Amino acid sequence: MPRYKLTIEYDGSRYHGWQYQRESPTIMGALMDAVRQVYGPLRFELYGAGRTDAGVHAMGQVAHLDLDSQLPPRTAMQHLNQALPRSIAVLSMEMAPRSFHARHDAVARSYVYHIARRKTAFGKNHVWWVKPALNLQGMADAASLLEGRHDFRSFGRTEREGMSTVVELQRVRLYELDASVVVHVLGSHFLWRMVRRMVGTLVEVGLGGLSPKQVEGFLHHESDIPTQLVAPPSGLYLEHVYYPGEPITDEPAFTLNI
Amino acid sequence: MPRYKLTIEYDGSRYHGWQYQRESPTIMGALMDAVRQVYGPLRFELYGAGRTDAGVHAMGQVAHLDLDSQLPPRTAMQHLNQALPRSIAVLSMEMAPRSFHARHDAVARSYVYHIARRKTAFGKNHVWWVKPALNLQGMADAASLLEGRHDFRSFGRTEREGMSTVVELQRVRLYELDASVVVHVLGSHFLWRMVRRMVGTLVEVGLGGLSPKQVEGFLHHESDIPTQLVAPPSGLYLEHVYYPGEPITDEPAFTLNI
Repeated sequence: MPRYKLTIEYDGSRYHGWQYQRESPTIMGALMDAVRQVYGPLRFELYGAGRTDAGVHAMGQVAHLDLDSQLPPRTAMQHLNQALPRSIAVLSMEMAPRSFHARHDAVARSYVYHIARRKTAFGKNHVWWVKPALNLQGMADAASLLEGRHDFRSFGRTEREGMSTVVELQRVRLYELDASVVVHVLGSHFLWRMVRRMVGTLVEVGLGGLSPKQVEGFLHHESDIPTQLVAPPSGLYLEHVYYPGEPITDEPAFTLNI
Repeated sequence: MPRYKLTIEYDGSRYHGWQYQRESPTIMGALMDAVRQVYGPLRFELYGAGRTDAGVHAMGQVAHLDLDSQLPPRTAMQHLNQALPRSIAVLSMEMAPRSFHARHDAVARSYVYHIARRKTAFGKNHVWWVKPALNLQGMADAASLLEGRHDFRSFGRTEREGMSTVVELQRVRLYELDASVVVHVLGSHFLWRMVRRMVGTLVEVGLGGLSPKQVEGFLHHESDIPTQLVAPPSGLYLEHVYYPGEPITDEPAFTLNI
């Protein structure tokens, strides 16, 4: 059965995350509905590179789709985009080797997190508006401590039993824009809510509630991260899923394709 | 009574335009509610630089507010932003001379219009998604014909009796971005729906349904613009209102502060 690789952009505001749920609207559920609309009663299988939580967005989620059809991928993509709600867009669809696996083959993932430093009329479900002033130097110092290979078990639990809590973070960087601060994270894999806990921790440093030293302590499991330090899902975007041989992009995607 | 100058950003998606209406939610109505919440039963007057239609957005609408209060403008702005819905943000509030008039003193206005060339998950109420391929060179040619001083009566009617249909357009330019085309327009004043008719006309040129020559004909009133050539409000943003002495910005605001 042919396998296709799909790259998907979505506004996760109104969805209960990526993963299919029988009773709630999910991104994967909407994609499955669209596949049924386009292909009729064909059997198919859809598998995402990673699960995003409720309210989290994606600029470049990847999924593979197994489906026995003669429809050229370009035409299929157009039909899928017509069938999908406006908040989900298939950006590319191509034939993939039968051995390609969206999740198991991924070698790295990147996320961007948008922190708004002022009220933004367009940001309700798309940023985290932090009202007090932030000490960006402190945040940048703490961010650089997180880079590298660490046991991140204080920052989240594994999605599946047996998965390692040791994560290699190639990049944790802050970018100061006009009205916002963007946190760009690139790593081998991520634990559940790990990016949101990292951002929540960095913001707490920016507010003066934690020192970079204490952040280092979390990496050595001297204490657990306070549960309230989880940044809201609204500001988080799965930016890109990397597969072997793909060059790493240096510049994060600062802006949405509005 | 002191006068304040306010700069306001709004997502117009769910509003029936700027101008106050007793029965429908409007930007001005929401601002008036917020002023009442912050200042209590004080008498005040609010006057916008220009009316935007239902669904049209603003990055820099300007209004003046007359109000007898000792509250420092910075504090007042914070309170207003707390009282306003997330889709409306006061970006600045400052004392203005008693003689300042948001509408009468404005010497130019600029708009940006976002045309998406592919489906964008974040754009439902914020772009116009044009599916067929566009001939951008033809659009740019037609755009440059619109620049200058012309009688734009084929492009719209005046908002008030006696207002001139002769408009000086300093700039009508196209910018090609990754997934979109941005039309940037700067002019002395604009007739009702003029920008949307201009963009609708340019897109029709891009689709091959009109020649730049025919666009020139509209400027000489050889024929009226077909009524269906009105671009949807979703892609339109009032970018800036210029007052005497203010330098004209060359680069349009390509991105929203999400």
